[in-house]
Amino acid sequence: MDCLDRLCVHTVTCQPWKLEEAVAHFAAAGVRGITTWREAVAGRDLAEARRLITDAGLTVVSHCRGGFFPAMEAAGRRKAIDENRTVIDEAAALGAPVVVLVCGATPGQPLETSRAQIAEGIAAVLPHAQAAGVRLAIEPLHPMYAGDRSAVNTLRQANEMCAQLDSPALGVALDVYHVWWEPGLEAEIRASGEAGTLLAFHVCDWLLPTEDLLLDRGLMGEGCIDIAQIRRWVEAAGFGGWIEVEIFSKRHWARDQAAFLAEIVRAYSDHV
Amino acid sequence: MDCLDRLCVHTVTCQPWKLEEAVAHFAAAGVRGITTWREAVAGRDLAEARRLITDAGLTVVSHCRGGFFPAMEAAGRRKAIDENRTVIDEAAALGAPVVVLVCGATPGQPLETSRAQIAEGIAAVLPHAQAAGVRLAIEPLHPMYAGDRSAVNTLRQANEMCAQLDSPALGVALDVYHVWWEPGLEAEIRASGEAGTLLAFHVCDWLLPTEDLLLDRGLMGEGCIDIAQIRRWVEAAGFGGWIEVEIFSKRHWARDQAAFLAEIVRAYSDHV
Repeated sequence: MDCLDRLCVHTVTCQPWKLEEAVAHFAAAGVRGITTWREAVAGRDLAEARRLITDAGLTVVSHCRGGFFPAMEAAGRRKAIDENRTVIDEAAALGAPVVVLVCGATPGQPLETSRAQIAEGIAAVLPHAQAAGVRLAIEPLHPMYAGDRSAVNTLRQANEMCAQLDSPALGVALDVYHVWWEPGLEAEIRASGEAGTLLAFHVCDWLLPTEDLLLDRGLMGEGCIDIAQIRRWVEAAGFGGWIEVEIFSKRHWARDQAAFLAEIVRAYSDHV
Repeated sequence: MDCLDRLCVHTVTCQPWKLEEAVAHFAAAGVRGITTWREAVAGRDLAEARRLITDAGLTVVSHCRGGFFPAMEAAGRRKAIDENRTVIDEAAALGAPVVVLVCGATPGQPLETSRAQIAEGIAAVLPHAQAAGVRLAIEPLHPMYAGDRSAVNTLRQANEMCAQLDSPALGVALDVYHVWWEPGLEAEIRASGEAGTLLAFHVCDWLLPTEDLLLDRGLMGEGCIDIAQIRRWVEAAGFGGWIEVEIFSKRHWARDQAAFLAEIVRAYSDHV
């Protein structure tokens, strides 16, 4: 078994587990990092959740997710900004250095309008993030989510937005699932590394066929993404942080989660 | 009812109909253009199929589809080139001025390799197309098809490939379904217009939610694409050709096709 020092598992990957189960199983399997899904800590005392995690020897790598900035009405955009401040406070309470942003898109308004509203929304919450010591990571989402989840669909766009907003508290989260197809990906990863904005690296796989747009991601090695190649590009760009396994999968969620976790650890060694 | 002079319907849009039924219904509904799916004319005498279509007052707008150039082995790539020559011959026999290319992608080899093989394959068949008086249109496919259908996923890439191969017999087919999300789409459409490579314009809609990656496209107006805006960009770029309705939809195929065709004609007037 390869070294697991940088392996992080997202709580949503083993969604059926409560936080206590996830933490105990992750620690027992040798996983050292954990990404917290907001739903996984909802309604909890976050200081206690943080103790639960750190007492097991785990590190909170990032908190998911903020974003969803666009809205037709100004009131909706203001509400989104307030909600993002709350997400940042949650991250700070959990000790998560990064909040991942799924930026949002509003059907019925042009993508360019949504993109402008995203930039405005991020600009509005950056001071709060900086004061809290939390960085925001724009996650470009696959173009199949451009309708209602994110109008930021390429690493190139995310890099451009970072350059435009130019803040030390802003960067990108790179998920192989969303950008593996992107022309010029290697150059964009290099540019992000040079700008110092590469904040997070997520892995899973693209299945052939994909049965569901949302909940049919593959375990690393089950699909067609050359994850190891993208990891080499990311590391050549200077990234040495956690490698986060984020798998939304009805199929895997229906299985015994301990067996699934063992496969994740093996797949991380074999295919990442 | 608006003028239908430029409305073309793809045979696959009303897949349950045989060619005779499609031709009769299209003509009766005032549709003047038809796109031929290879399967719709398979095993037929193509000169007779052509007469059937033109006798009904319809024009063959394009023939679908060639492409699928990449393969791991050279023999597979040679076979694809032969097959594309056959598709070109079919188009010439049908009187179709354009063959649409779904370029292909081979899981297990890098997208950059597939992209290079696509350029090589197109270059190899261009002389045959030119001799036959048929133009080839690279259709960028949505990135959700990058795994096994096309490694050309943006209009920008298609434009670059046209510039690289620089042939009067080569251009692009723009389908709103595949590129509506693309950053900088307007500029890429303008560039294609300036290069004289905008050969085809396909319309349908992106549904929210989309239930199936292949067979759940929407009728114009059912989804979130601002089709009229993209049409304005296409026309500002100098395109005045046919507007082809191409809808792969299990849901619509299960309906009465005459009722569906009537809706297509209405949706064309209202949303294109």
